Amino acid sequence: MSTSTDTRYDQATIEADPTIPAIHIWRDFAATPDQLFRAHTEPDLYVRWVGPADRTVVIDRWDATDGGAFRFVDSRGEDHYAFHGCFHTVRPDRIVQTFTWEGMPDEVALETMTFEDLGDGRTRLHGLSLCDSFESRDAWLRSGMETGVNDGYAAIDRMLADGTL
Amino acid sequence: MSTSTDTRYDQATIEADPTIPAIHIWRDFAATPDQLFRAHTEPDLYVRWVGPADRTVVIDRWDATDGGAFRFVDSRGEDHYAFHGCFHTVRPDRIVQTFTWEGMPDEVALETMTFEDLGDGRTRLHGLSLCDSFESRDAWLRSGMETGVNDGYAAIDRMLADGTL
Repeated sequence: MSTSTDTRYDQATIEADPTIPAIHIWRDFAATPDQLFRAHTEPDLYVRWVGPADRTVVIDRWDATDGGAFRFVDSRGEDHYAFHGCFHTVRPDRIVQTFTWEGMPDEVALETMTFEDLGDGRTRLHGLSLCDSFESRDAWLRSGMETGVNDGYAAIDRMLADGTL
Repeated sequence: MSTSTDTRYDQATIEADPTIPAIHIWRDFAATPDQLFRAHTEPDLYVRWVGPADRTVVIDRWDATDGGAFRFVDSRGEDHYAFHGCFHTVRPDRIVQTFTWEGMPDEVALETMTFEDLGDGRTRLHGLSLCDSFESRDAWLRSGMETGVNDGYAAIDRMLADGTL
């Protein structure tokens, strides 16, 4: 679970924390911290990358400020998944928010994302998703979340390359 | 850590969880679940009981709804402590919210409160405060939090007895 800058995360690394019921995600981008911050806070950008590549995202609540909230629906045909949460902290280097899939509304994760400037034109995203049990954390890990993570971050790479972001 | 209904929690029981970085609080009240829900969601009631008895609470943000937020300042003379967070779930039997003391703004707890009707005129409050490390959890336990918890819940007992609640 090294975060040494000798390590490169050109693909997302998703790991279970060894001592707390949390998931770590690391991913490096050819981006500034501000570009990653905007990708996570501006709704018109967010819908372009979040989730698996074969799905469409529609936002119906979005206020990415301290104490704001969000809700979006991720769809493929008649298959819909809705997610919502509230924003505790929205700062250029750090976002803290809650996150629930509405299929299991009492399972709430506390997510902390940081954007670390690596000083060479790259920025490291670290995400920590904290659950209230190891069983809940392990269910997230078994849910196929890596598809959405990898597809979404590949979409951010393309948005950085084509100037959308 | 029994939650059997044979156990009575006439005083608050505050315990460290053995496996996750969380604090449990149990307390029984001669109240309905709805009375406890209102004590936690109506700002005019909340300021009358929350925190240590020798302090005054002023709310400057309050929207106890799904995706809403709060901020309040707890004062004694020139000594001020501010707290804020966002509400993820606000339901008659369950409140899920974030919670930060602004003296350590990057320490965010995820709090889940439930109100269980014991069927004999009493309701059991269970609070779970989830932190992102055992060190942070242990710092909360060493902070003197029990004074605020015990004084606050004793104030709820008085509000129930005198009809304020």
